[in-house]
Amino acid sequence: MNLILLSPDDITADGGATIRDPRRLRHLREVHRATPGQRLTVGIANGAMGRAELTALDADRASFALAPLEEAPPPALPVHLVLALPRPRMLARTLEHVTALGVKKISLLHTRRVEKSYWQSPELEADRIRRHLVLGLEQARDTVMPEVTLRRGFRPFAEDVLPDLLTHRRGLVAHPGMAMACPRNVTRPTLLAVGPEGGFIDWEIERLLAAGCEGMHLGPRILRVETAVTALLARLF
Amino acid sequence: MNLILLSPDDITADGGATIRDPRRLRHLREVHRATPGQRLTVGIANGAMGRAELTALDADRASFALAPLEEAPPPALPVHLVLALPRPRMLARTLEHVTALGVKKISLLHTRRVEKSYWQSPELEADRIRRHLVLGLEQARDTVMPEVTLRRGFRPFAEDVLPDLLTHRRGLVAHPGMAMACPRNVTRPTLLAVGPEGGFIDWEIERLLAAGCEGMHLGPRILRVETAVTALLARLF
Repeated sequence: MNLILLSPDDITADGGATIRDPRRLRHLREVHRATPGQRLTVGIANGAMGRAELTALDADRASFALAPLEEAPPPALPVHLVLALPRPRMLARTLEHVTALGVKKISLLHTRRVEKSYWQSPELEADRIRRHLVLGLEQARDTVMPEVTLRRGFRPFAEDVLPDLLTHRRGLVAHPGMAMACPRNVTRPTLLAVGPEGGFIDWEIERLLAAGCEGMHLGPRILRVETAVTALLARLF
Repeated sequence: MNLILLSPDDITADGGATIRDPRRLRHLREVHRATPGQRLTVGIANGAMGRAELTALDADRASFALAPLEEAPPPALPVHLVLALPRPRMLARTLEHVTALGVKKISLLHTRRVEKSYWQSPELEADRIRRHLVLGLEQARDTVMPEVTLRRGFRPFAEDVLPDLLTHRRGLVAHPGMAMACPRNVTRPTLLAVGPEGGFIDWEIERLLAAGCEGMHLGPRILRVETAVTALLARLF
């Protein structure tokens, strides 16, 4: 927790902030070993960041005096990540990694090799997803919450949604055996599609290319989804 | 397990291979759903890779007929990774990530902000480290085992070992606030030093720079060690 992310609910009438949830209170006590008078980095969800003084800390609450918050959050990556839904534990870690790296648009997609049971996981509940996004923002000192969209049908996504997304973005599909190596140092808006463990099937690749995506590869090694996504984002941008 | 990594002990007198350990047998049955006659990718530790036919699978053993193995393992990254010892669970995952990415030389280093208790972790036993390296190789379809060295003293490493390592390598230290952005598309031999959660202390950075390393940064975001190491390797090489 390199930043304490304050929601509008945390802001008090006098312009300070009070947090009451056990996770953040425990972190303040056990990791920061925070004591009143200490100054910590805070940020308003989807807003500015700055320093705040801890004015009180007890078992139930921590209170902060907020100086004017004037620092902008770090730049976002210019990417819409389309990710075949990973298994639940991998999803949790991947959401944290990509949020920390600055991804702001994430679509979780069904594909042939995604196990249908993954769509029943409690990790897909809005609160659980939000928890992982918050952990990623707190880690990276960012305040801007990513948007996560669930796309439970491949064909409707590829045929009806993807062409619109590609009107203002370059589409890239990471897939072994493609001719083009992953581009580097990209600055223009990009859509990055990443398949499941086991990859997209040929028919899916054809649909993604038909919609306007370019295929590219990250080399001969087969990587786990969470490693591949981090490596792709770091190489691309 | 995208490759079955065979050790010399697994090779039988008739030139085939037999594996007996529960982990790989379970994986063959439950993930590959393998049946005799099926062809799978195998590799000899530190040697060649190719396809092998599963000739028998029962509760205690799996036997393979090996065709001549003629495929070379994928290229390694030209990097010696010097990593401040992470906490044990992070170490386990990071060893798997970097092995899958192709790192072949790893030094785990003590620094001021590494908790001393981490050096007592059973994760540092040779067998446990080897297990994570094998998982990384099996994932990426590689056979070449990385070398892991434990460096329990920062000063002896920085003063006595590092200068020798830098006679044939460019040294890079990833550290927030450095002037140079992380280079891209590097092909020459490189030593990459990555600090612990909380970073190197100033004195350590001074020693690393004095030994000939260049400082560089990965941007304004604070990343967890496992995310940062993967991102650095993917951007550098």
